[in-house]
Amino acid sequence: MNKPQQRQNFKISFIGGVGEIGKNMMALEYGNDIVIIDAGLTFPTDDMPGVDIVIPDITYILQNKDKIRGIVLTHGHEDHIGALPYLLSEIHVPVYGSRLTLALVENKLKEHKKVKMKGISVKPRSIIKLGCFTIEFLKVSHSIQGAFALAITTPVGVYMHTGDFKFDLTPIDNDGIDLIRLSEIAKKGVLLLTADSTNAECKGFSMSEKKVGETLNNIFVQNKTKRIIVATFASNIHRLQQILDVAEKNGRKVVFTGRSMLNVAETASKIGELKLNKNNIVDVTYVDKYADNELCIITTGTQGEPNSALTRMATGKFPKIEISENDLVVFSSSSIPGNEKSINNLINDLYKCGADIIYESLAAVHASGHASQEELKILHYLIKPKFFMPCHGEYRQQRAHKLLAQELGMEARNILIPENGDQIAVGKNFIKKIGTIPFGTRLIDGFGMSDVGSIVLRDRVQLSEEGLCVVVISVSKETGVLTSKPDIISRGFIYSKGNENFLEEAKDVVINAITSADFKTQDWITIKNQIKKVLTAHFYRKFKSKPLVLPIILETK
Amino acid sequence: MNKPQQRQNFKISFIGGVGEIGKNMMALEYGNDIVIIDAGLTFPTDDMPGVDIVIPDITYILQNKDKIRGIVLTHGHEDHIGALPYLLSEIHVPVYGSRLTLALVENKLKEHKKVKMKGISVKPRSIIKLGCFTIEFLKVSHSIQGAFALAITTPVGVYMHTGDFKFDLTPIDNDGIDLIRLSEIAKKGVLLLTADSTNAECKGFSMSEKKVGETLNNIFVQNKTKRIIVATFASNIHRLQQILDVAEKNGRKVVFTGRSMLNVAETASKIGELKLNKNNIVDVTYVDKYADNELCIITTGTQGEPNSALTRMATGKFPKIEISENDLVVFSSSSIPGNEKSINNLINDLYKCGADIIYESLAAVHASGHASQEELKILHYLIKPKFFMPCHGEYRQQRAHKLLAQELGMEARNILIPENGDQIAVGKNFIKKIGTIPFGTRLIDGFGMSDVGSIVLRDRVQLSEEGLCVVVISVSKETGVLTSKPDIISRGFIYSKGNENFLEEAKDVVINAITSADFKTQDWITIKNQIKKVLTAHFYRKFKSKPLVLPIILETK
Repeated sequence: MNKPQQRQNFKISFIGGVGEIGKNMMALEYGNDIVIIDAGLTFPTDDMPGVDIVIPDITYILQNKDKIRGIVLTHGHEDHIGALPYLLSEIHVPVYGSRLTLALVENKLKEHKKVKMKGISVKPRSIIKLGCFTIEFLKVSHSIQGAFALAITTPVGVYMHTGDFKFDLTPIDNDGIDLIRLSEIAKKGVLLLTADSTNAECKGFSMSEKKVGETLNNIFVQNKTKRIIVATFASNIHRLQQILDVAEKNGRKVVFTGRSMLNVAETASKIGELKLNKNNIVDVTYVDKYADNELCIITTGTQGEPNSALTRMATGKFPKIEISENDLVVFSSSSIPGNEKSINNLINDLYKCGADIIYESLAAVHASGHASQEELKILHYLIKPKFFMPCHGEYRQQRAHKLLAQELGMEARNILIPENGDQIAVGKNFIKKIGTIPFGTRLIDGFGMSDVGSIVLRDRVQLSEEGLCVVVISVSKETGVLTSKPDIISRGFIYSKGNENFLEEAKDVVINAITSADFKTQDWITIKNQIKKVLTAHFYRKFKSKPLVLPIILETK
Repeated sequence: MNKPQQRQNFKISFIGGVGEIGKNMMALEYGNDIVIIDAGLTFPTDDMPGVDIVIPDITYILQNKDKIRGIVLTHGHEDHIGALPYLLSEIHVPVYGSRLTLALVENKLKEHKKVKMKGISVKPRSIIKLGCFTIEFLKVSHSIQGAFALAITTPVGVYMHTGDFKFDLTPIDNDGIDLIRLSEIAKKGVLLLTADSTNAECKGFSMSEKKVGETLNNIFVQNKTKRIIVATFASNIHRLQQILDVAEKNGRKVVFTGRSMLNVAETASKIGELKLNKNNIVDVTYVDKYADNELCIITTGTQGEPNSALTRMATGKFPKIEISENDLVVFSSSSIPGNEKSINNLINDLYKCGADIIYESLAAVHASGHASQEELKILHYLIKPKFFMPCHGEYRQQRAHKLLAQELGMEARNILIPENGDQIAVGKNFIKKIGTIPFGTRLIDGFGMSDVGSIVLRDRVQLSEEGLCVVVISVSKETGVLTSKPDIISRGFIYSKGNENFLEEAKDVVINAITSADFKTQDWITIKNQIKKVLTAHFYRKFKSKPLVLPIILETK
């Protein structure tokens, strides 16, 4: 029993990944069918101390468990697959993606032993049916292989989602974005387009991955006597392939370092996405047996992560490899926003060891995986969707993408900038927000799946900024009087010369604040609040500090 | 009784400001005379929660109190004057600087009522004598007026220090760097040069401040209907002057917002460095009385500081001014490294309000205050010092500055890259490190002068990342047995469904860990360590977390 034709619509719920970079996750819904597109994580910001990863709130998925027909993955980057272990521990549906994407998920699941996945690998132009949806996977270029755009035929019309993508007209595998099939689908008419906005503020056309190989080759030719260390993102397998090829061509053996680099190289080589010449690979154990000019070391650590292989090499903490004056370090990578400081520290450390350094702003040693403005224009020119929503970007990038679509002729009223939590209905003649689903973040800490609540986090922030003061008083159960002087312990709280007596003073403040009449009430909550109030005021007056005051009352025999 | 001529040398001790950007402070020493050059602060990094400012460790100064003849200030930026209130609370010597520099210090001292300064203002080409040193102040261009290089005649030879500087060949006041006097001093021979390395990695010649005025004027002409909001650094008074002039020329009244902006504008106008046409200034209270196109608002907040005027305008928290679609916000500023994220958040918020934004990478709305490579080359070409030490920069900038000096003909052995704590001796024919003075940071928090020790800071970091668990047990003084079950309180520590009983479990762990025999020993320290050990292990096993465990033992009657 469908509603009348003109009211018919499908819904898209943005669980994450809009108005932000990271934790991409959407739910496409029609009637009783839901398909989940991606399930990514994001990394914590400075105001989340001790949090390891951040995943989207999946309440909406749990509320609609019975409708979920499957999970579709566009590609294997963490911001598209990183929340899967948590999602799959709650729902059990098939997962579709390229062979490489699924292999990377399987890799992750090794750390989550109880979680099992029913993975179904798809190829470019594969078509699957999930409930009422027919989904076609379209090859696109990106900074990882096996990346897909999705063309989804719904009962209302065709919905196209680009995933992360770029045009690379000289791709490494001679097989880039599937323009032919995109055109065929465009010709039939696309009702809704959602598209990658990451680089919507970047002018021009993104650089081809092939150019990076050429630059690297020039660097190898010009530095024949040096040991060459190339730092890059482990998941960029075309990049790894190019480095391997350039090294071999220049007569150098390759050493892989860094746990994720070793993992990915092994995984990708097993499924044939990375061609490894075993004779040209040297285990790090034997690095001493080769002269500097016979070696190329491929490493993780482009973001200056404190425990990464490259940081440890620069600080003398990596067994077997130490940076010295005959090293050339190439950062075949970009700075992820927020990491500028740690990258800068790493560069200083490398220079102090005497190394030479080449990075993105000095030579074409990195190509972005995201479309720049001229590529986005081709996309809009070709697809000409009726409705458009810019996604995968912060508001500034979404806004730039919207302005670009208008420049190519779309009317502003047909473009909607979605925010996390938005539920958008799309019909043949309308697009509109119809509600807000539960959304937000789950903060994951430790190895487990435990969720750091927001109260815990607020306490941590106060503890870290102001420190802590614990006040313990013990009261006799029988007589209701203090059985000892209050005890006070402080941590992370200011102290300085001349303030040695501050604990004694604080004890007096506590004693003066509570009378024996108070104790007789045995209303411990009121007494605790009273202690908290007077001590907080005392510390603020005295030190202009607001430590977390924790009163503890012990009843003793 | 001097040492023989060939051993004669002066010493420079780097208290701060080398191998880093910020907290600039040096001590120049000969015999019984010491002159302090600058006393700056730096702002805390992410790993210093709750710390407000960071100043250098001044132990060396305190150890040599009697030798200090005076403090010489190159200019009035926080990284050159910010530690003065703390320094002047310990030593009482005259302070020399330009009128503006001293006025800005006096402003700071209003918040430190007990500290008094004997300030002596100097003019370009002023010459003072401090002990055996003759110091000449030489005008340079920088992003604040009243900036000086120093030419110091010592018993060994001439020492020149640039301070922060740039060449501006079309300066706002038609009176830029004093090349004539620099040349005269160069001609007589300079033994040692220490110079600003901040932009030693930047190619070319820095932009003139005047260009910023031209760009701003174009922006005002092209946006006749909008309200224009210009965010800039309060201390850049030439910039303020240009904005004032452009606003008046384009028929707009000016509103100053932001506490530091109001302070600096008032201070600079009092001493004649800023020319304010009072008829063209509007108090923020009356902003409603003017149409958008009659207004130019000058504000602080270029770095996205959470409490700054601009951030509050963008989030609806600033009374009287709210950002809307008819606003054009100009960031006449650069991003200070480490602030990228908060600036990005601010830009997103402004766009969400509908504003247009112009920033440095879109138009020439900011000029750096530091010399680029071509300017540094002119400096070295002109001064041709015998010895050179690059300062005011991290290692990567110091290194670039060293390579530049070598390119201009200096020998590597005559260049020394100093680090904080280095004490360098300079004689007629040698430069060498002769020792290390006490150095490091003092972390200042709250309004006072209290120093956050490193243990306090380490506790804060652990508290913030892992949370806290307080265990209280009460023991009878007489019998030595537990008078109640242990009490446990946790804060900022993980919890999640299924773990509600973790406190009860932890209590059992504590009870099992200590026997009545332990209590009889009354060796509380050992007992506390035992509790700490078993609970830490328990939490790690159970939650993969390492909260700070604080055992408290109360002796009761």
